[in-house]
Amino acid sequence: MATPLKAEEIFAHLAAPEWQITNDFRGKDIISVEQLSREAIWKVLSTANDLETMPFEKRHRALESKAVAVLFYQPSTRTYTSFTRAAQALGADVLGIHGMMQYSSAYKGETLADTVRTMEALGFDTIVLRHFDDDSALIAARSIEIPIINAGSGKLEHPTQALLDVRTIIKETHNHNPQELHIVFVGDLKYGRTVHSLSKLMAILGAPEMSFVSPDVLRMPRNLIAGLNERGVETHETSSLNEVLEKADVLYITRVQREWFSTEEAYEEARSGQQITPAVMERIKPEAVLMHPLPRVDEITAEVDSDPRAAYFRQVGHGLWVRMALLKLVLGG
Amino acid sequence: MATPLKAEEIFAHLAAPEWQITNDFRGKDIISVEQLSREAIWKVLSTANDLETMPFEKRHRALESKAVAVLFYQPSTRTYTSFTRAAQALGADVLGIHGMMQYSSAYKGETLADTVRTMEALGFDTIVLRHFDDDSALIAARSIEIPIINAGSGKLEHPTQALLDVRTIIKETHNHNPQELHIVFVGDLKYGRTVHSLSKLMAILGAPEMSFVSPDVLRMPRNLIAGLNERGVETHETSSLNEVLEKADVLYITRVQREWFSTEEAYEEARSGQQITPAVMERIKPEAVLMHPLPRVDEITAEVDSDPRAAYFRQVGHGLWVRMALLKLVLGG
Amino acid sequence: MATPLKAEEIFAHLAAPEWQITNDFRGKDIISVEQLSREAIWKVLSTANDLETMPFEKRHRALESKAVAVLFYQPSTRTYTSFTRAAQALGADVLGIHGMMQYSSAYKGETLADTVRTMEALGFDTIVLRHFDDDSALIAARSIEIPIINAGSGKLEHPTQALLDVRTIIKETHNHNPQELHIVFVGDLKYGRTVHSLSKLMAILGAPEMSFVSPDVLRMPRNLIAGLNERGVETHETSSLNEVLEKADVLYITRVQREWFSTEEAYEEARSGQQITPAVMERIKPEAVLMHPLPRVDEITAEVDSDPRAAYFRQVGHGLWVRMALLKLVLGG
Repeated sequence: MATPLKAEEIFAHLAAPEWQITNDFRGKDIISVEQLSREAIWKVLSTANDLETMPFEKRHRALESKAVAVLFYQPSTRTYTSFTRAAQALGADVLGIHGMMQYSSAYKGETLADTVRTMEALGFDTIVLRHFDDDSALIAARSIEIPIINAGSGKLEHPTQALLDVRTIIKETHNHNPQELHIVFVGDLKYGRTVHSLSKLMAILGAPEMSFVSPDVLRMPRNLIAGLNERGVETHETSSLNEVLEKADVLYITRVQREWFSTEEAYEEARSGQQITPAVMERIKPEAVLMHPLPRVDEITAEVDSDPRAAYFRQVGHGLWVRMALLKLVLGG
Repeated sequence: MATPLKAEEIFAHLAAPEWQITNDFRGKDIISVEQLSREAIWKVLSTANDLETMPFEKRHRALESKAVAVLFYQPSTRTYTSFTRAAQALGADVLGIHGMMQYSSAYKGETLADTVRTMEALGFDTIVLRHFDDDSALIAARSIEIPIINAGSGKLEHPTQALLDVRTIIKETHNHNPQELHIVFVGDLKYGRTVHSLSKLMAILGAPEMSFVSPDVLRMPRNLIAGLNERGVETHETSSLNEVLEKADVLYITRVQREWFSTEEAYEEARSGQQITPAVMERIKPEAVLMHPLPRVDEITAEVDSDPRAAYFRQVGHGLWVRMALLKLVLGG
Repeated sequence: MATPLKAEEIFAHLAAPEWQITNDFRGKDIISVEQLSREAIWKVLSTANDLETMPFEKRHRALESKAVAVLFYQPSTRTYTSFTRAAQALGADVLGIHGMMQYSSAYKGETLADTVRTMEALGFDTIVLRHFDDDSALIAARSIEIPIINAGSGKLEHPTQALLDVRTIIKETHNHNPQELHIVFVGDLKYGRTVHSLSKLMAILGAPEMSFVSPDVLRMPRNLIAGLNERGVETHETSSLNEVLEKADVLYITRVQREWFSTEEAYEEARSGQQITPAVMERIKPEAVLMHPLPRVDEITAEVDSDPRAAYFRQVGHGLWVRMALLKLVLGG
């Protein structure tokens, strides 16, 4: 077995010009947000808009001669369903396998490289891949000619989630200029790949100010904060949601997992004051947007769902259009 | 976690006028046979007939702009395949997941309500749901706007099975008037939700007389017998198949499970004389219909399969048309 | 439960004229290579060629009114995906279930016969079946009218693999006459059903000479060697790859499993000198073809993949066309 690549090695690799994307996505692998220029991000967003207004008949034929494989090595309803539905909605033939570890030759010791080569040989035009290894999407992409779309690789990257989060922010703030938005991230900022990727993308789009609210043990990695600052983002870090609540244009909540705390008390203490309830909602801006990548447990209570600013289920819907856009751009349909 | 609703609470809820269905199914949730009027039952049956005689080209486009999610939290080949095939045969985009407990966010603690809201956000037009909780279909239906079709909720309801059983009875008795039929139910009548639902529907259609053959410990619940009597059905209960065998126009067999008996002897004794063999078939009416919801183990022996009155596999086929009818009625395609 | 049929019983059964296939495949079950005449093999190959050159629009409608069930009781990516993709590519409605043991009524004790009868009742036009019992495909075929396509039954048969291997040999040797080819089989020749079936088919096509390289404990079964000799094939058996390497027109490698050896040493010794490395590739003919049914572990090293003679991933691609051909021939689309 090859030694797994470390995060720095993966990013160093993706920094090479041939991995960078400006406005031509055809045949490109989508591995990481690190590949995306400002132009590329806007291209995805405008393509999503185009698809949303396209007549059903035309949209449902956009990829009718294409075949898409959706291979999931880890459980997921939302992302699996979203990609599968996106490919169907564009008229592609779709073959989804959501139990690759149980049903594929992976359990017989076949490498990921051999599995994706097999899919390429079977005539698929792209592979959407969710895998537990950080370097899985890169390894897969290097093994074959057809494009890989990374639907989550280990704890490191989930670029399509970041792109759908960007669309959600733009749409739900009614097309406010990203350069005017203050985004507040809350929860597990140390391991939360969605926060890492989204903050990068919003920095590329010119967001001027971001706040990061987390327990001390789950703060943003230092290098990510430094990267944001280098891009000119003013960053604030705190463990108190109260401090920044009223400034948020976007409030992005993530789940804090029990496993990072040695005692139940430490866990409960870290979460105290972080739960989003109707009382908290009363204090945020009337036009603010509340987001969550889901699934949620109780970090946002069910009573909040009926608040018009609660955008997390609409966020899922924005994801469908973003994934359709990516499939169409990559496959050039 | 919310406390699960009890059967009486669920039925009380569904008794409200907005849940009742007469002849307009569009956008309606199909949760329970309790929602169905006589007119509604006939509407399903006539729609199934229409679809069966419709040219392939037209039928295969009936739902071509619709998307159907088929979410199963419990194993099932027959119902899963039947619904998935039904939606395909009408030209819908179908996304089926038959391992929701393994592959979805359910194992991360996501509520059913959040899962179905996600599916709604992804643009599905209906969700076909099989779940182990009695109140699952109702909970799901109350969480979203798009219609839920209950493909089995806990031990309580399986309304589409009851409707396909009605179609089987009508078709296999060559369109005899339900008001002339004597139906004999055999087996586990205490826990058998198919028997509970079917007997209700046949009572609504005017069936005059039903017999119930079961071991003492597995008799029909008292309230269901009372409900049938209130509708004017004459009911007979016995533990001896011999007593009623020759009167049956329809013989509906269900499986008796070992788990309800404290000893192997008690189990075997309860089943003695209940097995359907060629010798038993010699004694029933020449035009009688033998049904079983399947899977069967040995309560009907394989030798019986070639008897023209053995309708259980044709019963599966009737189910396909009934499920197509329900999808078409609910989605208004 | 019925006693499972033994290999000899299965083959004796298939020897009856009604199971033999010459050039009309419509409605026929594809259970075993034993059913196939020379004419039938060429028919599959020529149909695969026709499909490959057919315009997309026409090919994608070849089976548009057909429904195909793909039922897998054992894990497999390659065969499952290949058949599912093949049916999709011909425009059929496809319903694939790759966890039949987990999600079907099989775990409730339903027989395979009852399961396939259910699928037939649901209107499927054919069933593609992978099952762990040697006699599964035959049992299934005898239970229903619609054709069964065997996608692997126990350790005994995998006829579509053998057919795709034949196509690979013909294509990769640039349409050389099979009567001029020396094929060398390497690895587990005792239990390797792909070797058993392929050697039979190549003998039917007139291959004059075959070599069999294996550890002593994994030699070809005596009756298969005898059968090949009866057909006029000159056979060589050896445990040394070196002896025959330079004569091979086709080198067909299979995996040797650890479980057949009592000690790690015996296992390693048996495999020593059998691994295909770039050094080995230097010694084989410049136009030779290297095949493997996959998955491979380390019996062919990754460095060999870039050798133009390494045909194992193209082999997967040939399989797609062969499976499309079989579906089209059987369903008469």
